Amino acid sequence: MKKWIQKQSSELIARRIFTLRDIDCHHPEKDIHHTFFRLETLDWINVIAVTDDNRFIMVKQHRLGNDEITIETTGGLIDHGEDPLEAARRELREETGYSPARMTLLKKLAVNPAIMDNYIYYYLAEGCVRVSDQDLDKEEDIEVLTYSREEIRSMMRSGEIDHALVITGLLLFFDHEQDI
Amino acid sequence: MKKWIQKQSSELIARRIFTLRDIDCHHPEKDIHHTFFRLETLDWINVIAVTDDNRFIMVKQHRLGNDEITIETTGGLIDHGEDPLEAARRELREETGYSPARMTLLKKLAVNPAIMDNYIYYYLAEGCVRVSDQDLDKEEDIEVLTYSREEIRSMMRSGEIDHALVITGLLLFFDHEQDI
Repeated sequence: MKKWIQKQSSELIARRIFTLRDIDCHHPEKDIHHTFFRLETLDWINVIAVTDDNRFIMVKQHRLGNDEITIETTGGLIDHGEDPLEAARRELREETGYSPARMTLLKKLAVNPAIMDNYIYYYLAEGCVRVSDQDLDKEEDIEVLTYSREEIRSMMRSGEIDHALVITGLLLFFDHEQDI
Repeated sequence: MKKWIQKQSSELIARRIFTLRDIDCHHPEKDIHHTFFRLETLDWINVIAVTDDNRFIMVKQHRLGNDEITIETTGGLIDHGEDPLEAARRELREETGYSPARMTLLKKLAVNPAIMDNYIYYYLAEGCVRVSDQDLDKEEDIEVLTYSREEIRSMMRSGEIDHALVITGLLLFFDHEQDI
């Protein structure tokens, strides 16, 4: 299978954390031109965090994408030059005040290769204990909640947890557990 | 938990299938203003399709988001006013030429409520048989491949399948199977 050849790209909009571009392409076999758009952004982390007494640490917040209050695992952007593992540890600490005894990379996935260039790193953080208060940006309003494994499974079934990238992380965790 | 109040929105860019907006918000408790961006787009479908002899129907294509050739389940946009189930059936037929004996909704999830307003419907299509050629748009270059269950699991482990939303669908399927 031949790849499209990227001939030229034009920046439609550029912000601190993303750039939207049109990419003019030529297909070497079909000899046709097509313009694709691409959302370029930083890589992300997501943390499935479990306390030392086996409760899942979740964050509740108002999300402006779909205007819903969601329950999610901790997630965020990896800063320029930051190590993904450190970003995961930092985000967990900032959003929840918890610190893990050990962290494991569950999986690195492409967020949405049809339109986005970035990757998401899923970490499992085990043996978490609360060591500080939250350290939030002024526009962040995040409530920390913990749930049993059975409650998490039930919230996945009911749709109370319905963020696709969060469901991915939780299913990776449950899938990973079975392989052990 | 109080929601942000959306005061005003400004369109940054509008295309046939998406609109990017800035949303100026006010928080009623904190009494602060903040601008969030939102990518508004159509809802999507994704189809975990299995042939009548238990092979997974996958599509291989060059994705311009991350410039990689990916192996994915069939997915696409739900047209304005189209029923999600019909969209799933249509996309499967167009991209692969297969038609299912039965379809089941596995899950409806929010794609990414932090920045996007849309939902993705995951369908299981069982008993698929090839009934026609592909019916592709001129800019689509899609190869159809089928794999055994063990091959799919192995490709998920190796990273050969690494599209997060596709992994979600496959894990939903394997998770759903265990509950039966």
